[in-house]
Amino acid sequence: MTVRIDSFDTAGPGDTAALSACLDALDPARVRRLALLVKTEGSADTNDFSRELASWRAREAVLARLGTEVLERTVFLHSTGAEGAMTPFGYLIADVAEEPAAAAQDASGPAPGGALSMGVGRSRTVRGSEIGSPQHVALAERAVADAVADAGLTPQQVALALVKTPLTGHDEPVRVTSAQAKAVGALGAALALGEVDPARVVPAAFGRDLTLYSRRTMVFSSSEAARVEVLVLGNRPGATGTLRIASGQLADVLDAPGIRRVLAAAGAGLTAEGTVRDPDRVAALLVKAGHRHDGTLRGARTTVLTSHLDPDKHIRMVMSGVAGSVLGSGRIFVSANSVHQASDGGGLCVAVVRPGAAEAGA
Amino acid sequence: MTVRIDSFDTAGPGDTAALSACLDALDPARVRRLALLVKTEGSADTNDFSRELASWRAREAVLARLGTEVLERTVFLHSTGAEGAMTPFGYLIADVAEEPAAAAQDASGPAPGGALSMGVGRSRTVRGSEIGSPQHVALAERAVADAVADAGLTPQQVALALVKTPLTGHDEPVRVTSAQAKAVGALGAALALGEVDPARVVPAAFGRDLTLYSRRTMVFSSSEAARVEVLVLGNRPGATGTLRIASGQLADVLDAPGIRRVLAAAGAGLTAEGTVRDPDRVAALLVKAGHRHDGTLRGARTTVLTSHLDPDKHIRMVMSGVAGSVLGSGRIFVSANSVHQASDGGGLCVAVVRPGAAEAGA
Amino acid sequence: MTVRIDSFDTAGPGDTAALSACLDALDPARVRRLALLVKTEGSADTNDFSRELASWRAREAVLARLGTEVLERTVFLHSTGAEGAMTPFGYLIADVAEEPAAAAQDASGPAPGGALSMGVGRSRTVRGSEIGSPQHVALAERAVADAVADAGLTPQQVALALVKTPLTGHDEPVRVTSAQAKAVGALGAALALGEVDPARVVPAAFGRDLTLYSRRTMVFSSSEAARVEVLVLGNRPGATGTLRIASGQLADVLDAPGIRRVLAAAGAGLTAEGTVRDPDRVAALLVKAGHRHDGTLRGARTTVLTSHLDPDKHIRMVMSGVAGSVLGSGRIFVSANSVHQASDGGGLCVAVVRPGAAEAGA
Amino acid sequence: MTVRIDSFDTAGPGDTAALSACLDALDPARVRRLALLVKTEGSADTNDFSRELASWRAREAVLARLGTEVLERTVFLHSTGAEGAMTPFGYLIADVAEEPAAAAQDASGPAPGGALSMGVGRSRTVRGSEIGSPQHVALAERAVADAVADAGLTPQQVALALVKTPLTGHDEPVRVTSAQAKAVGALGAALALGEVDPARVVPAAFGRDLTLYSRRTMVFSSSEAARVEVLVLGNRPGATGTLRIASGQLADVLDAPGIRRVLAAAGAGLTAEGTVRDPDRVAALLVKAGHRHDGTLRGARTTVLTSHLDPDKHIRMVMSGVAGSVLGSGRIFVSANSVHQASDGGGLCVAVVRPGAAEAGA
Repeated sequence: MTVRIDSFDTAGPGDTAALSACLDALDPARVRRLALLVKTEGSADTNDFSRELASWRAREAVLARLGTEVLERTVFLHSTGAEGAMTPFGYLIADVAEEPAAAAQDASGPAPGGALSMGVGRSRTVRGSEIGSPQHVALAERAVADAVADAGLTPQQVALALVKTPLTGHDEPVRVTSAQAKAVGALGAALALGEVDPARVVPAAFGRDLTLYSRRTMVFSSSEAARVEVLVLGNRPGATGTLRIASGQLADVLDAPGIRRVLAAAGAGLTAEGTVRDPDRVAALLVKAGHRHDGTLRGARTTVLTSHLDPDKHIRMVMSGVAGSVLGSGRIFVSANSVHQASDGGGLCVAVVRPGAAEAGA
Repeated sequence: MTVRIDSFDTAGPGDTAALSACLDALDPARVRRLALLVKTEGSADTNDFSRELASWRAREAVLARLGTEVLERTVFLHSTGAEGAMTPFGYLIADVAEEPAAAAQDASGPAPGGALSMGVGRSRTVRGSEIGSPQHVALAERAVADAVADAGLTPQQVALALVKTPLTGHDEPVRVTSAQAKAVGALGAALALGEVDPARVVPAAFGRDLTLYSRRTMVFSSSEAARVEVLVLGNRPGATGTLRIASGQLADVLDAPGIRRVLAAAGAGLTAEGTVRDPDRVAALLVKAGHRHDGTLRGARTTVLTSHLDPDKHIRMVMSGVAGSVLGSGRIFVSANSVHQASDGGGLCVAVVRPGAAEAGA
Repeated sequence: MTVRIDSFDTAGPGDTAALSACLDALDPARVRRLALLVKTEGSADTNDFSRELASWRAREAVLARLGTEVLERTVFLHSTGAEGAMTPFGYLIADVAEEPAAAAQDASGPAPGGALSMGVGRSRTVRGSEIGSPQHVALAERAVADAVADAGLTPQQVALALVKTPLTGHDEPVRVTSAQAKAVGALGAALALGEVDPARVVPAAFGRDLTLYSRRTMVFSSSEAARVEVLVLGNRPGATGTLRIASGQLADVLDAPGIRRVLAAAGAGLTAEGTVRDPDRVAALLVKAGHRHDGTLRGARTTVLTSHLDPDKHIRMVMSGVAGSVLGSGRIFVSANSVHQASDGGGLCVAVVRPGAAEAGA
Repeated sequence: MTVRIDSFDTAGPGDTAALSACLDALDPARVRRLALLVKTEGSADTNDFSRELASWRAREAVLARLGTEVLERTVFLHSTGAEGAMTPFGYLIADVAEEPAAAAQDASGPAPGGALSMGVGRSRTVRGSEIGSPQHVALAERAVADAVADAGLTPQQVALALVKTPLTGHDEPVRVTSAQAKAVGALGAALALGEVDPARVVPAAFGRDLTLYSRRTMVFSSSEAARVEVLVLGNRPGATGTLRIASGQLADVLDAPGIRRVLAAAGAGLTAEGTVRDPDRVAALLVKAGHRHDGTLRGARTTVLTSHLDPDKHIRMVMSGVAGSVLGSGRIFVSANSVHQASDGGGLCVAVVRPGAAEAGA
């Protein structure tokens, strides 16, 4: 099995032309897992329907090109908010069986240190009575653990657990805030990855004890999701493929050095000016960024909590500049609200890098 | 005469506590020129009155503390839009006569290469029939030339011409767009600084011929201003004082290397990670940033022209991150719309730096 | 042929449950024409994708339930902006052949004065070189004339010409503003309905000569449409069915008496308090409302041109209250920008009413 | 003592020209009480500073024209949000001693049923520990009772208690929501007016028990206020002056008949079309409007709770149309959020009317 990542631009949330071209390149019979991570360009307010439109169209495209069976093995993550320096785009991540010929030819053997591996997990439907509760945490924990196993990784080898978690119960109209849904999703992942003491994961801490956090999780809440859905990525020793992943925590939204360290760890070269030497080798760059609970940044007041715009909108735009100035491109999957995914105001950076000419030719 | 720069935070647009403390430190009898550059935190939409409130309160504060004569020698520039990583704050720039004792003690003599010098200029009232026209350009050109002379600089020595230009005629209700007002203001400055061929400065080029631009101008439009008002900064050989200024063009909003070059040229040290070693030595950092007329960035589509937010808002937030990640602080005077102040989508960075311990002690 | 109107609520732009129930009640073999008028609930800003989502889902629903042939005979009009007192909802208007039994039983014969009749028209694709030009006007005029003929009406009998007009050429990326697209669409309809002097319909008048307008047209611009599409409604003498339509101009957005007059003319009873006696008898209420070009209302300044919100958003909300207070319900199809569809700041009201118990039983 | 009401338009929140002309007409020596009610035109979002600007300028104007003593006897109420059909404007309400000559000439004697009378009340500073608590309620109750006494009215004679209530404690940074501040202010007024059972006014009911409400109160929260400030209006038997006030509850935001009833009760004539015959005779029209807690209106879903705009913005715009279509003008003081000031989703209408030619001449 080899994991490949394609990126595709969109002309609008309903546009699937470039995605479809990527899908056409896949042989449904060889696809073990598929994941689609897409940034959509609506207002990111409560009446933004770009995510629903894009998600609907993407399902149609996968169904039309790869069929029902692959559709059922696909994780969809549409995240709204492609502002600032960002380009509206998506990543198609596929775990595919190698063609026998290609496998035979690849005499170089698996890369030392492993190569990118992916796994997915899904909880059962979350009940209204469970939304935002310890049961929700437990369901998230189990889904992450399943995804880790599916990827053939140990919890320590996981570079990123990407968790999508519901906002509402589907049997009764209970609804929690996005921050609450993210809190339980992140804490479930932190437990599955062995990053926090289970004794501290109690309701009073949800969304409040900001010293309690995973270091390798990104959480997304969804008003359409009925289950917790998880995508796990990491380097698996012995895996085929040449992609390498690395991740690391960011101190705050201005932490460009932290982003450079992650890119370097994944194998990307940097210029003396602090920019990525060959952006085309960066197969994926994902950043989760946050703001401090008191609205300050490096000790100074900001307006993220007192403007007419959602704090997450400020943070995504700022980070699009910070990460964009390092990568030299706006094709970055930036999302905001890092509750329980980093220290207060911190963030997470994840990079997947292709081997350079030298390495690939070795 | 010595130019000093203080920065002060605000708790809101109507707050003048920290500004007043800075004003109290000045002796009105010694103040030759005063300039106030302030970022206010309203919505930056058409019904944002934060600038008017802040401007009103600042005038009161200068009047109460330094009197009518100094008030008349003061340039006020309130710029709305303190989003993203920015802190709502201001710079108080004062050109003051040294105390005789201090002047005598300063045996080290003027700094080689000169020290920061400032000058101001003001046009007569711009008539409604002139707004946005070649006459408006000529008035701006003359006001900039006056400010250059007032600063004791040659046009070549100017690091920054900061131009505030009216949107409306005060004798009749003619109104141009902010982009049009900025266009004529910038072209007037470009002429005064000898940066463009006068034959090319024709109405058909205003706001359209984006290859025509100053490289050392920042323009601001104002619905309250009746005249073109100008502040000019540059290093003057033989000037007393220890502040050094440098400026340089930015290729686009992601040009962090360009910001580092300007900071280094002004004397700020940088770490191996690409951040400013001692942010307290940076007396001022001003950035004018822009977006390309077609909305692309490094060849990729962005949403700056197709979202519900003003493009300038996107750009300010992005740049607050890019410059903030270099400076390590959100106290940066970021503004947007670089028409005729840089190439299409480009920008301008200006830094003023205090001498380090080593230099000061030399 | 009998025209029937059903209204259906939506739980969101992607919801077609109630629409589908209405569609299920139709026999595809008997449907001559179908029109769907839907208010969607996005932000109504440039990055609102609710209309695209709703339109996509509605096409799927019509296709799934009534087949390709009926789909091709259907006019879709999705209009975003369901604010204030409005309920997100839609009208399904169908021209259906009577069941023979029902036709035989209906011994009462056609209503005196006629009954509601509908017709549709479509132009060929509008080229980029034609968008916003006299050719665009001519295409709109022809499409309206076709729709009038399709409805079996004379131009004088038309109560409403509902025109959807493209914003862009589909062969080249020319784009006009929504106001410009509406201007040419409305003037084309005014010509077809014989309401304006053709000699005055010249480019210099488009969007500028506000004394030039249709009195029975509502125009909508669409970034997806490639053709001018038209729905015409009017009472046709001899038509079967019992619905009655009336329309009339409104002086301004506060003209509640004008709305009452139209409702009364269509047959709705009013209470002494000025409200509709039986809202269920009102099969449809459509209002196009506008603001004066100078932003005043009854001689006083308003903020519709100087706020951070689109003027159309103000106007829709105001009219939702004015018309809602008369109808006693928020199920009203309110849209804004009445350029060339009314005098400056004026509007158009259209009501379709079912016969009351007394009339029906006669 | 005679109460007079002037209305004045503003060209912007900082404009006091028309207000100043009204102030110039007052003799400071005769002014017993002054109240200023002003609608300002900012965005009404959290970073709208129009209210602060207008309030600042208004205080300066009163001070400059009427002096410190009158300033201290003045109640200022600046309410942001002048959208839709509204005109940005204000009311200047003054209780002035008659000139002896005028008093002697007025042989007609006091109007039967009384004439408009005003009173003001102020609590002590509200402590941070009291904000939103029963102590806050008690302070509001006492301030209303003081204002009732100051007006020379009985609680039953009060037509309107207008209450301004702080959001924050001034000794410590405790802050409640605007809805919470309004809840305690309204309940205090309801107690003072004898409208609710004191046993039901318990913390668990604040903002939650929507069956508990005053019928003659409008509440406004203020982030600048340190005290509860109250203006009370009512007809006092024996009072001089000719203005008459009436108030009444509205069922919901579409209740135009309710508005007509209040106008008629205050003496305004209505046309057969349901509009005010002579708008100039309406000295003041104030409306507090609300939305139901579940977002429905007359049984149908609206988008007031699910759009990107504050529900209050929707409601103000809708009501500006409903009331504007009755009055025939946008000079209406419309505000939103009627918690504890009406039943769920209801509102309050208050009208002050001048005598007509017939009455005045009698």
